[in-house]
Amino acid sequence: MTDAAGIPADHPRHDSLVTRHRIEAGVEAGITSQQGLIAQGRGEAFDYLLGEQTIPSADRAARAAAAALLDADQPVLSVNGNVAALVPEEIVDLADAVDAALEINLFNRGKDRMAAIEAHLREHGATEVKGLTADARIPGLSHERAKVDADGIYAADVVLVPLEDGDRAEALSDMGKTEIVIDLNPLSRSAQVSPIPIVDNIIRAVPRMTEHAQELRGVSPEKLAAVQREFDPEETRKTAEAALRDNFGAP
Amino acid sequence: MTDAAGIPADHPRHDSLVTRHRIEAGVEAGITSQQGLIAQGRGEAFDYLLGEQTIPSADRAARAAAAALLDADQPVLSVNGNVAALVPEEIVDLADAVDAALEINLFNRGKDRMAAIEAHLREHGATEVKGLTADARIPGLSHERAKVDADGIYAADVVLVPLEDGDRAEALSDMGKTEIVIDLNPLSRSAQVSPIPIVDNIIRAVPRMTEHAQELRGVSPEKLAAVQREFDPEETRKTAEAALRDNFGAP
Repeated sequence: MTDAAGIPADHPRHDSLVTRHRIEAGVEAGITSQQGLIAQGRGEAFDYLLGEQTIPSADRAARAAAAALLDADQPVLSVNGNVAALVPEEIVDLADAVDAALEINLFNRGKDRMAAIEAHLREHGATEVKGLTADARIPGLSHERAKVDADGIYAADVVLVPLEDGDRAEALSDMGKTEIVIDLNPLSRSAQVSPIPIVDNIIRAVPRMTEHAQELRGVSPEKLAAVQREFDPEETRKTAEAALRDNFGAP
Repeated sequence: MTDAAGIPADHPRHDSLVTRHRIEAGVEAGITSQQGLIAQGRGEAFDYLLGEQTIPSADRAARAAAAALLDADQPVLSVNGNVAALVPEEIVDLADAVDAALEINLFNRGKDRMAAIEAHLREHGATEVKGLTADARIPGLSHERAKVDADGIYAADVVLVPLEDGDRAEALSDMGKTEIVIDLNPLSRSAQVSPIPIVDNIIRAVPRMTEHAQELRGVSPEKLAAVQREFDPEETRKTAEAALRDNFGAP
């Protein structure tokens, strides 16, 4: 079996090759920035250290994240250039599964890039894309980077911020939102400030969150609360840190 | 004191900021490729794990490398896009200090990129730049990637291949050349096949090699041989691996 990029599903470096292919397409489409390519490289190195696999604590985090999104009043999934390039269809599927809004939020906000990302998400099934109105500001951040939609991230109670920079992750956290982070470095500021840090490759984490959401859909509010309560972010960060150390150089 | 990019020399993240600045300039000049940006990100992650410092075993490797280059009959420093972008002046200084040739050798060989890199090196003081004749081939590599100069890398007895991909590092090693590698991942194939692997950031390693070369210049051939003989690549790889593990998460 091969996927859309023609890469056999059982290829030992499948995730890595799919990722590379999508990032290159993202550059062609004007979605992926220079900084996005460098960030992609950093992610590759951490995923290599992790053994390019989802460790059990990351799976538990994905489940807690799905519960938090299902439990939310106004969940929003924040989308930057690399998220759009790497998991366009998967992020739309997750938004559907948890009934969340999608909002484009860029470090370098350019009109053409915003439009390219919006078009890319719509091509992959998105019906509504926020972030273009930009009628509110995240306090504590300078100019362009602070722009969000008043009825989107600004009003959200739970926000998924995958591949986010530390400043913005911290500013959103300071607003009192429950912030779910996907970051391969458990020691990054984003992962440190998050009550639900998912230390995993986004191309594995997002479909996994969707699976958990589909399983948890329709369970009682008590059950959703329990899944979140039983999750321990500090244990997750420590386990991931140990896994990165242990898997480096493992045969 | 600030450097050419206006970054104070004592800034705690000086190397990282200089690197970022040079890579961006490299993209503008048509020197740095997409793959180069991703590779830069991988390097950043490993350097972060290493604590962005030159560990003692990397300094010993830099010294052994300087001795090997001084001891060589036909030393060549191989230059790719990231090397040219990151250490243009420093690589020219090293070539001068050890009397080595500079040869451009690219994974993606494009005429415009070759010319841009040649111009960049000349702007930074290079008087001769090889790699444009491309009248010989490295055995075991396909088409474009195999191209080298007959009187350059092909004929060299000692070659510095910084930031090289594993295939080419292995092919050069198979030709019986003494191959000096600069790679932040001690487990990479390049670092594994090299008798002198320098596990360090290129922007620290190259000037350090030049300093060692200036110190060792004029010593006896016996002394040069001793410096090389006393160097242990396996110990260096192990020490670097341990440092990457230990420095990750260190306060």
